[in-house]
Amino acid sequence: MNLKIKNALISVSDKEKLTSLLKVFKKFKVKIISTGGTYKYIKKQGYNCLELSKYTGFKEMLDGRVKTLHPKIHAGILHDRNNKKHKTEMSTEKFPSLDLIIVNFYPFQNIVMRSKNPKNIIENIDIGGPTLVRAAAKNFKNVTIITSKNDYKDLAHELNSNKGKTSLNFREHMSAKAFGLTSYYDAMIANWFNKSLKIEFPDRKTIFGKKFKQLRYGENPHQESSIYINDYDDKNLGLKQIHGKELSYNNYNDLFTGLEILESLKGKNVTVVIKHANPCGISVNKIPIISLKHALSCDPLSAFGGVVACNFKINKKIAIELSKIFLEVVLAKGFDKESLKILKRRKNIRIIDISKFKFKNNMYIKSFSGSFLVQNRNDKIVKMRELKCVTKLKPSKKEITEIELAFNFCKYVKSNAIVLCNNSSTIGIGSGQPSRVDSCKLAIQKAKKFQPEKIKNSIAASDAFFPFVDGLELLVRAGVRTIVQPGGSIKDKEIINYANKAKIRMLFTGTRNFYH
Amino acid sequence: MNLKIKNALISVSDKEKLTSLLKVFKKFKVKIISTGGTYKYIKKQGYNCLELSKYTGFKEMLDGRVKTLHPKIHAGILHDRNNKKHKTEMSTEKFPSLDLIIVNFYPFQNIVMRSKNPKNIIENIDIGGPTLVRAAAKNFKNVTIITSKNDYKDLAHELNSNKGKTSLNFREHMSAKAFGLTSYYDAMIANWFNKSLKIEFPDRKTIFGKKFKQLRYGENPHQESSIYINDYDDKNLGLKQIHGKELSYNNYNDLFTGLEILESLKGKNVTVVIKHANPCGISVNKIPIISLKHALSCDPLSAFGGVVACNFKINKKIAIELSKIFLEVVLAKGFDKESLKILKRRKNIRIIDISKFKFKNNMYIKSFSGSFLVQNRNDKIVKMRELKCVTKLKPSKKEITEIELAFNFCKYVKSNAIVLCNNSSTIGIGSGQPSRVDSCKLAIQKAKKFQPEKIKNSIAASDAFFPFVDGLELLVRAGVRTIVQPGGSIKDKEIINYANKAKIRMLFTGTRNFYH
Repeated sequence: MNLKIKNALISVSDKEKLTSLLKVFKKFKVKIISTGGTYKYIKKQGYNCLELSKYTGFKEMLDGRVKTLHPKIHAGILHDRNNKKHKTEMSTEKFPSLDLIIVNFYPFQNIVMRSKNPKNIIENIDIGGPTLVRAAAKNFKNVTIITSKNDYKDLAHELNSNKGKTSLNFREHMSAKAFGLTSYYDAMIANWFNKSLKIEFPDRKTIFGKKFKQLRYGENPHQESSIYINDYDDKNLGLKQIHGKELSYNNYNDLFTGLEILESLKGKNVTVVIKHANPCGISVNKIPIISLKHALSCDPLSAFGGVVACNFKINKKIAIELSKIFLEVVLAKGFDKESLKILKRRKNIRIIDISKFKFKNNMYIKSFSGSFLVQNRNDKIVKMRELKCVTKLKPSKKEITEIELAFNFCKYVKSNAIVLCNNSSTIGIGSGQPSRVDSCKLAIQKAKKFQPEKIKNSIAASDAFFPFVDGLELLVRAGVRTIVQPGGSIKDKEIINYANKAKIRMLFTGTRNFYH
Repeated sequence: MNLKIKNALISVSDKEKLTSLLKVFKKFKVKIISTGGTYKYIKKQGYNCLELSKYTGFKEMLDGRVKTLHPKIHAGILHDRNNKKHKTEMSTEKFPSLDLIIVNFYPFQNIVMRSKNPKNIIENIDIGGPTLVRAAAKNFKNVTIITSKNDYKDLAHELNSNKGKTSLNFREHMSAKAFGLTSYYDAMIANWFNKSLKIEFPDRKTIFGKKFKQLRYGENPHQESSIYINDYDDKNLGLKQIHGKELSYNNYNDLFTGLEILESLKGKNVTVVIKHANPCGISVNKIPIISLKHALSCDPLSAFGGVVACNFKINKKIAIELSKIFLEVVLAKGFDKESLKILKRRKNIRIIDISKFKFKNNMYIKSFSGSFLVQNRNDKIVKMRELKCVTKLKPSKKEITEIELAFNFCKYVKSNAIVLCNNSSTIGIGSGQPSRVDSCKLAIQKAKKFQPEKIKNSIAASDAFFPFVDGLELLVRAGVRTIVQPGGSIKDKEIINYANKAKIRMLFTGTRNFYH
């Protein structure tokens, strides 16, 4: 049912675009009630407006903490216009109806961003505003609630096309949006409290996000998808797209893996090649272009159509190397002018500057049919001193650096994961297999195919312990001379014996790195 | 700072355990103000209590819609006890302080569960309650907020050990909990509105969950984890554990995959074996025990330590078969007495009855550093009529049923996925590879190892198109005679030509099924 707007209550912290509405209100003779800053603003624009305290007869108190929390206001919003008893009570109390509520909150995230003072942050939690919004949203049958300046245009359109009335459909949609806002607002507050109290797994958990972009589709063309940002101070994820088509769901999924790996190897020059959310090449090298070349040569066939992530700046030379193959996305910490000229020759390649990307160490969610698993991120980086050599043959100090790296690489390969490394670069990756021996086979096959000369004396890293000797045997036979793995199998003794007999080095990390 | 409780406002829908508190309040001479049902309850228990309307001097109206939304109440909560101006204003108005607020909401989910009437659901959205809770939670420096009967014990302990006072630390924790509740409550409402308006990707999205269980650890022992339920009417996910250790994160992850596959094959007898969140055997058969045997024989080595999911009841015979290998978890639609006796001989096996499990078709979330991707579930099941035969050789009607099945199996294998099928069962699964040809190799290797006799005339399903002929060549050489794939490659023509030359059947589905 269409509903005539007679009385409107306006209380907005952001006054932009408000004037456009005031004109429409004047046209339809809408009476405006308002508080503090909004009241002054409306008067200044030359429109009529009644101050809220004059309307309620109650002077606002406690520096504005209590102004709209008044029965005259809330009865005006909440009464059922079709209920006789309600109508009688309203006329007994001489409470008029409020038909339109326009409220926006001072954005909590801005305060959290700017202020490190908890007192100031808490002071800014709005109590009256959300109550007005929730009351009006509940009673959308009778009241219109507007919570965003972006909806002013639609409201004006409603009034203009319905002779000063709003439609039920419009009111219901605005109500859904309003509860979207109050839940988002309180989720921000709850998460802020939990963070400051170091509560990671509260009894009731709310995850909030603001839509950043609707994606063309999801993992597949028949699935719909959007990406949301849930950080207080982030407007674009820290990713600046310079060129190419919009990022797809699968692009995001791949680049998340890339950024995660770069984060874990901070301080080194790193290149990662990603395909189907699995790395198919990782390399660390003092010389950026060599790290790129080594990463690509791990599996040049799979790199085709992949995502390349570098944590260094791209220059002309590197760009020439990159443009030799077809890539979907290139991520790097900046691109010089010449490099962009070269890269942009490919029309579709997505070029993303990650210079401003900052990792937020948040919780990881896996959702499934009415439930979700939450865990904290696997941000543990195994350090040299945690490596325990269990064989007679020991690695040198220099070798240990390589071993540490190999183990940290394999953390990002889907389980079961086996990674062969040489010279701080992967040379064979065995991923996503139901049995470890299969992953060993895969890693060896890859290395044999593309860089057989590098298998000799290479390092094999395993994300979890070897349940049997079989995988080890394959690795040793292929030429691997060092194995790094968590240890912890009931067959460890047998496995260590085998390693000693085979005259290889084996190190236990004590840390498992499953990843699915 | 410890804070003396002088005046408490209590308004609870669930009155359980309240009496225990009333005794403590009497001891410390706490004055109680209360509304409607709570007021009557307290009086009946023989304790003193002041009715809220007498306290405010304002008679509650609109069937209780407006009672606590009153300046005397909210100033009583919100004023800063250390602010001179606030204190003066409070004494001018003769408003006393309210030091403790106890509120619980009538659970919104119960109403959604019981009522199909939107009017009734909306009527039950609480406005006054959340406002009291938010106001008190904001002012935790001066006020104690209790939102759950489970916290009464702690409150009593606080009062008893601090001579009628509460500590700042306690109040702050209760405040975090309170905002947890209000955000959860509004997230439920917002999601209900969005659902009824068919809005899947609102501007602001909140995902809510109630902690179901804290898990021993996450994907790895050094990660913490909990599982949350976000459905209105669900208390245990519909999973009834009959025997064995508690489910781990990885168990849940695996069984989610199992339940997802069972859901997609409703109406048939199905067994799925899962390892590392990938199926390593799926079989459909009229005779349940045969479906189990076939599923296990796809990769008997990997099945070791796996999760088996059946959508039929387990009897003695099936239990004997199941107990031949070591399994982490068995899921089935019920177990008869004899079967349980047999299965329970293994102390650690987790036995789960899924008879009451109901699939909720919700959104899928992938979270990453300050952002999350949302997509709707890939619930599309490709039907026979969507299969387009592109080769000269055509399959029979009976064969088409098998082909349809094979394609729907491969949807749940991590990309790139190739699945070889024979007799409605997988005989070789190639998963999680960066290039399709690698997945082809893997699937063939598996089949050759365990059931070479079944490769001849088998069906190969691919989750996405073949970019080159290479994978196809391997499959044909191994003995595959039917290939089902989405199609859509720029090389389709070449690929169809090859299939015709090789005298195999090839069908296009038009549907891609990436899964990462």
